Amino acid sequence: MMLAMEATALAVFMERDFPEVAADFVVERADEQGLCLRLKVASRHLRPGGTVSGPSIFALADVAFYLTILSRIGPVALAVTTNCAVDFLRKPKAGCDLLAEARLLKLGRRLAVGDVLVFSEGSSDPVARAGLTYSIPPDR
Amino acid sequence: MMLAMEATALAVFMERDFPEVAADFVVERADEQGLCLRLKVASRHLRPGGTVSGPSIFALADVAFYLTILSRIGPVALAVTTNCAVDFLRKPKAGCDLLAEARLLKLGRRLAVGDVLVFSEGSSDPVARAGLTYSIPPDR
Amino acid sequence: MMLAMEATALAVFMERDFPEVAADFVVERADEQGLCLRLKVASRHLRPGGTVSGPSIFALADVAFYLTILSRIGPVALAVTTNCAVDFLRKPKAGCDLLAEARLLKLGRRLAVGDVLVFSEGSSDPVARAGLTYSIPPDR
Amino acid sequence: MMLAMEATALAVFMERDFPEVAADFVVERADEQGLCLRLKVASRHLRPGGTVSGPSIFALADVAFYLTILSRIGPVALAVTTNCAVDFLRKPKAGCDLLAEARLLKLGRRLAVGDVLVFSEGSSDPVARAGLTYSIPPDR
Repeated sequence: MMLAMEATALAVFMERDFPEVAADFVVERADEQGLCLRLKVASRHLRPGGTVSGPSIFALADVAFYLTILSRIGPVALAVTTNCAVDFLRKPKAGCDLLAEARLLKLGRRLAVGDVLVFSEGSSDPVARAGLTYSIPPDR
Repeated sequence: MMLAMEATALAVFMERDFPEVAADFVVERADEQGLCLRLKVASRHLRPGGTVSGPSIFALADVAFYLTILSRIGPVALAVTTNCAVDFLRKPKAGCDLLAEARLLKLGRRLAVGDVLVFSEGSSDPVARAGLTYSIPPDR
Repeated sequence: MMLAMEATALAVFMERDFPEVAADFVVERADEQGLCLRLKVASRHLRPGGTVSGPSIFALADVAFYLTILSRIGPVALAVTTNCAVDFLRKPKAGCDLLAEARLLKLGRRLAVGDVLVFSEGSSDPVARAGLTYSIPPDR
Repeated sequence: MMLAMEATALAVFMERDFPEVAADFVVERADEQGLCLRLKVASRHLRPGGTVSGPSIFALADVAFYLTILSRIGPVALAVTTNCAVDFLRKPKAGCDLLAEARLLKLGRRLAVGDVLVFSEGSSDPVARAGLTYSIPPDR
């Protein structure tokens, strides 16, 4: 299988189309198995106590899966999240970046479905799990 | 039924314990039926194109349900989200605040479950629906 | 708003297209607000201990929302569930039928989204809550 | 890691405590990675057209994850499902058994969280994905 976009192309796309978002993330890997995205944790992502906030984890999972879809179908900016279900499993480790491992379970003509595991860097116990569905515009 | 915390007490609590978060939200109503929370939409909540971002909608639903729980059991800062499933239904209207209507479906000793409908102000078609579960610390 | 199918028409459709399923359910009400479906609880729906099983509650919510869609768009047998998320809140009361209250939150061209509250007959505390998404065939 | 219950012990437990359910399922494997459960598809699991019904897939995922928990903590009959979110991805193949691959993402004192992929036997494209949360009784 050939990817429609590799890690570098995904970073360029994000930088251009979602500049505010792009500053937070690094595509660590994009391949047939899926994609790994890093959240460069900064103070704006934290709750009092130093834990990464729920919305930041949500954003990480959502962007990771969006880029996974793009890696297969190319730069379709109009794909939109229709459902995202997050299980919060453990507190993220303080002072660590988060890594999201996304995989695609179905890429249909209209819907893409996948899931994401989120880890504190250096740990193998997941911080969160997310299931996501994206709607893909019909006229691509 | 008496509420453990009314709208004003909830605002004071949020201001003190979650100051960054508090700046975004206004408790419009807290009563037996549930709670209504306003997201004061600002540019930091927007995606390119002017739509409120998914993480901002997630945060609104999550805070709305958290405050609903507190309105019943008092200021338990340690209640944590264990699951949040969001259906994104429609684009929010540009230039409008969002209003979240939260209701409590179960308040157990260990888990609280509820759901939230999110509307663009002035519209009756929901922008998003979220189902949430919180874990409540045992020693309250 | 006119319904495309009233309660009687829905019952006839179910009887003809899903005869095994039809035996379990009664459409109690179909109107603009949504639909109420009864599960006629029988021994085949029970787990040891006399509680209605999870799969039976799932089926009730799924059929209730399916019929809600049909009440709006007519007998489209090919609409299929793409996502169903159920929160189990309380044990159903023994020896009681279950009632599902379904409402439609979005009826798009491709997706229908709604939710369902399930009650033991005569009780106002929900047994379960479900969020559902259906994919609607494009060529209707 | 030692399992609290191996595949044979799980089958014996199911046979004794859930005899009606036991007839439908075979534990194919239970190990550190998780558990594989087979649904022996019979006519009672089918919808018109010969596809395995949604409730049957729900039941398969739910039982697979329940047994996965038991494989770690032993025969705790009172663990109960609090949330199950299923994405239906593809039609199951006609005339095939279904296999569920369950894994445990978190085993806390009060909650267990995991997910399940369901396949038609002989196929590597998943039919469904489920995320599950169980509440574990405190006094074990």
